[in-house]
Amino acid sequence: MPDKQLAINKGERIKTQVDISLYWKKQQQRVEKALDQSIPKTSVRPQTLHKAMRYSVFAGGKRLRPILCLASADAIASSGTDALILSAAVECIHTYSLIHDDLPCMDDDDLRRGKPTSHKVFGEGIAVLAGDALLTIAFELASRCAGTKRYPAAELVKELAYSSGSQALVAGQVVDLECEGKKITAAQLKYIHEMKTGALITSSIRLGAMSANATARQLKDLSDFGQALGLAFQVVDDILDLTQTSAQLGKSAGKDLKSEKATYPSILGMAKAEKEAARLTTLALSKLKPFGKKAEALEAIAHFMLARKN
Amino acid sequence: MPDKQLAINKGERIKTQVDISLYWKKQQQRVEKALDQSIPKTSVRPQTLHKAMRYSVFAGGKRLRPILCLASADAIASSGTDALILSAAVECIHTYSLIHDDLPCMDDDDLRRGKPTSHKVFGEGIAVLAGDALLTIAFELASRCAGTKRYPAAELVKELAYSSGSQALVAGQVVDLECEGKKITAAQLKYIHEMKTGALITSSIRLGAMSANATARQLKDLSDFGQALGLAFQVVDDILDLTQTSAQLGKSAGKDLKSEKATYPSILGMAKAEKEAARLTTLALSKLKPFGKKAEALEAIAHFMLARKN
Repeated sequence: MPDKQLAINKGERIKTQVDISLYWKKQQQRVEKALDQSIPKTSVRPQTLHKAMRYSVFAGGKRLRPILCLASADAIASSGTDALILSAAVECIHTYSLIHDDLPCMDDDDLRRGKPTSHKVFGEGIAVLAGDALLTIAFELASRCAGTKRYPAAELVKELAYSSGSQALVAGQVVDLECEGKKITAAQLKYIHEMKTGALITSSIRLGAMSANATARQLKDLSDFGQALGLAFQVVDDILDLTQTSAQLGKSAGKDLKSEKATYPSILGMAKAEKEAARLTTLALSKLKPFGKKAEALEAIAHFMLARKN
Repeated sequence: MPDKQLAINKGERIKTQVDISLYWKKQQQRVEKALDQSIPKTSVRPQTLHKAMRYSVFAGGKRLRPILCLASADAIASSGTDALILSAAVECIHTYSLIHDDLPCMDDDDLRRGKPTSHKVFGEGIAVLAGDALLTIAFELASRCAGTKRYPAAELVKELAYSSGSQALVAGQVVDLECEGKKITAAQLKYIHEMKTGALITSSIRLGAMSANATARQLKDLSDFGQALGLAFQVVDDILDLTQTSAQLGKSAGKDLKSEKATYPSILGMAKAEKEAARLTTLALSKLKPFGKKAEALEAIAHFMLARKN
């Protein structure tokens, strides 16, 4: 949970106008409720599947993507029903990607958010299927949006499908898988991160904006914000993997190093990686200027993402 | 490829008005082209992923679901661009489900349509991701439909998501997985088949009808047709697994028996299973009466599905 007072960079502290801790808590509660209403109860057949879907969705995620979606809508108008539906949809896609990434044939991880991964609890077959079902439900959710004149519901589905697809989210995982143990360049690493993490973060922000009927100009600014933020998020993630313990992270620390996975610190060095995270955050924040006070929540989230410890 | 002259049942032969062989060929060509245009070329990054997606999509499938989708639209008006887009979408979903079903953690099959399965060629990780990407692209395709007044594009996405979701397609695979090696009842077997095969077949038919702006009554009749046909299809599949060789099927024959999987012949006996397939086909055909001559293609396909040898 982020503090009201957030550290941007070495020692520099700012006081945000919006109470980010309260904002986060309030939006998180909306997201939890929306997710609970979106995913069939564990009493619904097939029970194992719905148990597995809920196990991973309610495993203590920070709900970063959903809250970005809501805050993005708030930067334009205010986050209504569509923004909430879409926030649940992006979290379902994020969760599916984690379940599949953790599989033995992928990153082979036993721990996620401090809990055994899906395949460890339910077996590989059910884990694959729980991921499949979460991916599918995301599109069902998006299709239920009322939409706006500029962005009818089908446009929201298209956005979600593109950012989750073979040239975005899945592409990132494919190239990540192919590069494991190989020496890669900073450009290749950027590609992986932009696809694997950046695409869905950017899309969460875009979907929120679209649900609030953003103008083309507003959508462009928020997309640029999302792209810089998404990359900053991943650089921080790489840094945390090296500097934090498993208990602090809630997942296996030092995993990247052990699996010889290329990371920002391993390619650029720790100092340059930290500098890059700060540079990207500053770039992201500059894109919020046209939104003025309405973008305070997005701004606070960006600060929080750089200062986080897990 | 079906013959013009089709056997319905022992010795009984009918001559359909529509030249089904020609119809099938013509529609198949449209579907192949639509699929080729829908899935990124193998030169598009990440190349391995797009190769894997195309490998399975163009592995010689009969295109039953797409052709049902087109024929269903033809039963109402005629199959236009939306019907074609949706026919590609349902084939992408069907292919994804086959790739994931064949995985070692599921049915563990090495052969599909006479070729090595995706994970045998590309490895398990890429096979999982190729399936994920095909599922995702199906929704992107559906979101591109123009839609009709009764059924806007988002309604088509919703239909596709429901029939592929945790209470339909995925449910079937989950229960199938859970029941392997266990004694199950005819009712449980019917549930698995209705979910695993029936749901997408019915949905293919419904989507075709929706793309042609079907009335509620027409949609109901075609849904009933699809449900009976889907079940008939699976009963025939069970029978073929026992009576045909691997070469004839293009996949491992006798697999159900070897894996002690419950099938219609194993639960009902062969004679009753054959009778059930014929009964379901007759039921299906009765639902087409209101459509008159316009449903001739659907009728011919139903006959073909019962008479097929692979």
